[in-house]
Amino acid sequence: MSDTLLKPHPLDEATYLRSLGPGRLAGRTSAAYWNMAGPFGGTTAAILLRAVMEHPDRRGRPVAQTVNFCAAVAEGEFEVLVRLVRDGRSTQHWLVELVQGDVVAATASTVTGPSRETWSHRPGAPPPMPPSQALAPLPTEGRNAWLGRYEFRFERGEPIPGRASAEAPAPALSRAWVRDAPPRPLDYVALAALADTFVVKILQVRGDIPPVATVSMTTYFLADEAEMARQGEDYLLCTADARAFKHGFNDQTAELWSAGGELLAVSNQVVWFKG
Amino acid sequence: MSDTLLKPHPLDEATYLRSLGPGRLAGRTSAAYWNMAGPFGGTTAAILLRAVMEHPDRRGRPVAQTVNFCAAVAEGEFEVLVRLVRDGRSTQHWLVELVQGDVVAATASTVTGPSRETWSHRPGAPPPMPPSQALAPLPTEGRNAWLGRYEFRFERGEPIPGRASAEAPAPALSRAWVRDAPPRPLDYVALAALADTFVVKILQVRGDIPPVATVSMTTYFLADEAEMARQGEDYLLCTADARAFKHGFNDQTAELWSAGGELLAVSNQVVWFKG
Repeated sequence: MSDTLLKPHPLDEATYLRSLGPGRLAGRTSAAYWNMAGPFGGTTAAILLRAVMEHPDRRGRPVAQTVNFCAAVAEGEFEVLVRLVRDGRSTQHWLVELVQGDVVAATASTVTGPSRETWSHRPGAPPPMPPSQALAPLPTEGRNAWLGRYEFRFERGEPIPGRASAEAPAPALSRAWVRDAPPRPLDYVALAALADTFVVKILQVRGDIPPVATVSMTTYFLADEAEMARQGEDYLLCTADARAFKHGFNDQTAELWSAGGELLAVSNQVVWFKG
Repeated sequence: MSDTLLKPHPLDEATYLRSLGPGRLAGRTSAAYWNMAGPFGGTTAAILLRAVMEHPDRRGRPVAQTVNFCAAVAEGEFEVLVRLVRDGRSTQHWLVELVQGDVVAATASTVTGPSRETWSHRPGAPPPMPPSQALAPLPTEGRNAWLGRYEFRFERGEPIPGRASAEAPAPALSRAWVRDAPPRPLDYVALAALADTFVVKILQVRGDIPPVATVSMTTYFLADEAEMARQGEDYLLCTADARAFKHGFNDQTAELWSAGGELLAVSNQVVWFKG
C-alpha cells in the first residue's frame, strides 16, 4: 500500500474545518496550495463550500456558489461563519464569511438542493479533444505551489510567460484535461476548487502577469451525485475563455466536463488587473 | 411636451427606495413590472443594486452583482439592508438583503470599484444582427406586465408557447434588440434589470412553462460610465443561451452589447424548474 493511501489528500487537509459551535468553524491556510501572495482562490472556494456541506441542517447537493474575494487571506488561522438565510422547499440559501481578526477576507452565497430527476436536455457538447495521455503534462516545478496540486494537459492555451504580448495578444480560449494531483475521487468540494484552476487569462493572452486578482467567482454545479461518482479520479475536460479586458477588469467563462462528456459545472469570474 | 416626460420612468418608480437610517431602506413592489406570481426578478436585481449605489460610502461603479432569489417576494412593502463588508483600495464588497417580515426574500453580493483606464483587449465580438427597425417587436399585450416594460425585437429565439416540445426541443440561443419601454437612458440599475430580461429558456426550448424560477443570477458590468452614456436610450443587443437542463436546473449565459458594439455586461443564471 503506497504512502499516499495512508495520508489524507492535500485538498482534504487544506479544507479541514474544526467546529467551534453552531455555524462557526476554524481552519488554517495550506502551504501545499500557496499561490503568489496568498492561498489559491480555489481552496478558499472549497473551504467555503465544505463549511456549508458540513452544516447539520444542509440538505442535498450544491447548486450554485458565488465567492467574493474581499481581501488577501493571510497565512495562518481563519474562522468561517455559516448562516442559513432561507430554508425553502426546493432550495436552501446560505451566506458564508471567511474572517481573519476583524477582516472579512471572503464571502460566499451558496444554494443547495436535493438531487431530482426531471426532463433533461443537453444542447451543449464538449469540444473534440485528444485523449489525455496524448497531451504532455504542464511542467509545474518551480512555480507557485498550487499548480503542482493539479495535473494539467493542455490542448491549447497553455499559460506560458512570454508567448504573447500586449501588442500581439494570443487567443483567450484554453482547453485542457485537468485533475487533482495526486488523483482524488471527485466531489463537490474538489469541483469548487477545480473551477478556479484556469490560470489568469491575462498571462495567456498578454504573456505577462501584472498585479491581478479574482474579485468574484460563480460556479453552477449541474451534476448530481451519480454523475460525480461516475467521474471518479478521471480527468475533467476544462475549457475557459474571456471576452473583454477593459477598465481594469476581465471576464472569464469556463466549462468543466466529465471524462464521459457530461457537463459537471459551469463557472464564471471577474478578474481585477492593474496596468 | 409629452406626458411621459413629466412622470418618472416606471423603472425609477419600481426601484424607488426611502432611507430608514444608515444601511436601511424601504421600498414597495410595482404592479408595472409584475410577473406570473411576483415581481419580475430584474426589478429585484435593480432594487438591490440601487440600494448600494445610493449608499453614502459607495465609490465608483458596479463591477459584479450576484442576486440570490431565496423566496417569493409578496406584493407590498419590503426593507433593504445594505452592509459594506470590505472597503478595499481597489474594490468595495457589499452584502444586501431584501426582507419582508422575517423572510429574507433575496440577497445580493455586489462589488463596486472606480472607473480606470487600463490596457484593453476585446476578443469577443457581437454577432451579426439586422438593424433593430428591420425586426418586428414582440407582442407583449395580454402577457405578464413586465414584458410590456421592454421592447424586444428578436432575430431568433422568440419565447412563443407551443413552438417546440419536450420531444423536439428548439435551440436555446436567442438574439434580440432590447430596450426599456418607454425608452430610458441606460444606467447600471437599468442594466441590472435588463440582464434578467431573457425569458425563461425552457419556454423557448420546450414550448411550455412549467413551474420555474431563477435561483441565482450573476452580472458582471464591463462598461465604464462613458460607455454607458454613449448607449443612451438605444437598443442593446442581447444574446442568451443554455447548455444543460438536468436534475431540475438549467444554466443560462447572456451577453449585453451596446448599439455601438461594446460589451456592456455578461450575465449568468441558474434556473430551477419542475417536471
